[in-house]
Amino acid sequence: MKPLVAVDWGTSSLRAARIAADGAALEERASPRGILTVPAGGFPGVLHELCGDWLAAPGTLCLVSGMAGSRQGWREAPYCPCPAGFAELARALLWIEPGRVAIVPGLSCEAGGVPDVIRGEEVQVFGALDLLRRPGGVFVLPGTHSKWVRVDAGRVRSFATFMSGECYALLRQHSILARTLPADDGELDEPAFVRGVRHAQEAGSLLRAAFSARTLALFDRLPTAAQPSYLSGLVIGEELRLRDPGAQPVLVGSPALTRRYALALTALGVASTCLGPEATWRGAAALARSLEIP
Amino acid sequence: MKPLVAVDWGTSSLRAARIAADGAALEERASPRGILTVPAGGFPGVLHELCGDWLAAPGTLCLVSGMAGSRQGWREAPYCPCPAGFAELARALLWIEPGRVAIVPGLSCEAGGVPDVIRGEEVQVFGALDLLRRPGGVFVLPGTHSKWVRVDAGRVRSFATFMSGECYALLRQHSILARTLPADDGELDEPAFVRGVRHAQEAGSLLRAAFSARTLALFDRLPTAAQPSYLSGLVIGEELRLRDPGAQPVLVGSPALTRRYALALTALGVASTCLGPEATWRGAAALARSLEIP
Repeated sequence: MKPLVAVDWGTSSLRAARIAADGAALEERASPRGILTVPAGGFPGVLHELCGDWLAAPGTLCLVSGMAGSRQGWREAPYCPCPAGFAELARALLWIEPGRVAIVPGLSCEAGGVPDVIRGEEVQVFGALDLLRRPGGVFVLPGTHSKWVRVDAGRVRSFATFMSGECYALLRQHSILARTLPADDGELDEPAFVRGVRHAQEAGSLLRAAFSARTLALFDRLPTAAQPSYLSGLVIGEELRLRDPGAQPVLVGSPALTRRYALALTALGVASTCLGPEATWRGAAALARSLEIP
Repeated sequence: MKPLVAVDWGTSSLRAARIAADGAALEERASPRGILTVPAGGFPGVLHELCGDWLAAPGTLCLVSGMAGSRQGWREAPYCPCPAGFAELARALLWIEPGRVAIVPGLSCEAGGVPDVIRGEEVQVFGALDLLRRPGGVFVLPGTHSKWVRVDAGRVRSFATFMSGECYALLRQHSILARTLPADDGELDEPAFVRGVRHAQEAGSLLRAAFSARTLALFDRLPTAAQPSYLSGLVIGEELRLRDPGAQPVLVGSPALTRRYALALTALGVASTCLGPEATWRGAAALARSLEIP
């Protein structure tokens, strides 16, 4: 495999890694220069500032994933429609410098007359497949906008976006619940978190379940310090309420988040597997290898 | 019936009416002196400023409902547990001046180990029963915190709170959706609203449905001006997703809100009845009459 530099360029952060042939990161660098901080035309400069030395090595391939390919990014890479595997993704690469620097497009899918999109998570999912040596499964990428991705035979079939992280923050900071919540989230209170997860299953809608954080506080039946954990359980539990009952999801993301999802799934009697953000590097390596197959 | 003054004292507003024996308002007055604007000890003064002349009539009974009975209000009236009808409510009245001025307590109920509460809506529900001459039904009181109340044989059996109005405002003003939404809500776009209501039924969770407001905008499949109506449909549709399929709800509240709920229910094939906020006065009159029965 040619020398590979993988770049994960998000809205508020930029990460890059020099990748070995097996997908392991040889060296990683990060910067706060998310796409929102980069003026039009400034993308090549920011990238070279972060890892110009890596890119200078002869024959290096650079794959950029994430919001850099959005309308507000470096250059807009149109979404690649599902189902999509390496072949579709490779054909849809947006080459900035032919054979040298490419933007990996996001994916789009359609369900019930409504489109959905991911950008960057597709590389993590392919990395997870590679790490687990599996051709398919259900992959959950928790975050501000949590993504549930279904893969069969190496191709992403469909996915769905849940605004979980964002809704937690809105309820936490701006709703009536903020009045009784403590200033800091503190450590995760596992029993309170699991109580929230379970109540979400019964309530059937976060619109309804959320008010319980207030009434439990009002009746002194939930300690103040445990309220953020309970609310987090309500939100993550709401997301898990729609899970495919037969699936054992693979959770990909920061350990702090995947741990919460795994805990919630365990409480619901569902086994899961956790992978870290290194899945991004594995996915970029797998995509790079697929480009070398004639 | 003795002369009656009914007072609906909420968080951010104060309304009062002089009520005829049949429950019709002879005269109404309103003030912006919601409980949050009244300092401790200031409640009698504010009430007398608004309607001291009415209260001066010999033998007048004054019934105060709403947040005035909360911990932050005039005096805390402990919640009356469900099931509760006139008899339970009458026994639980908190008399400020015996036989003259009373605070109507809110109601509490319990489901799945979680308490829920209403304050003020119970009087509206009893007024709706009186107006419709019915002993029971499902009553919906839409608002910041929408209440679904089930009544059988003249007694409130249970209820549930949905944070619908508040969640709409959070998504509208503070979420990523705010970036593509127009500054003003504008007139209701009925087809866009109904589209949101229908999508909420399919999506199964607002956490998931909400992102469609963004992707439809991203793919130019929902005009900017129609987006607030679509989002309102998603939120109200989410609330209606949990409706009892057999019920024909009675909607009680401001015509602007009940009209939306009725429209959404019609789209889902459900008939409903709309009543205005005058139900509060009817409910107070019915409660006053019940006090005179020995």
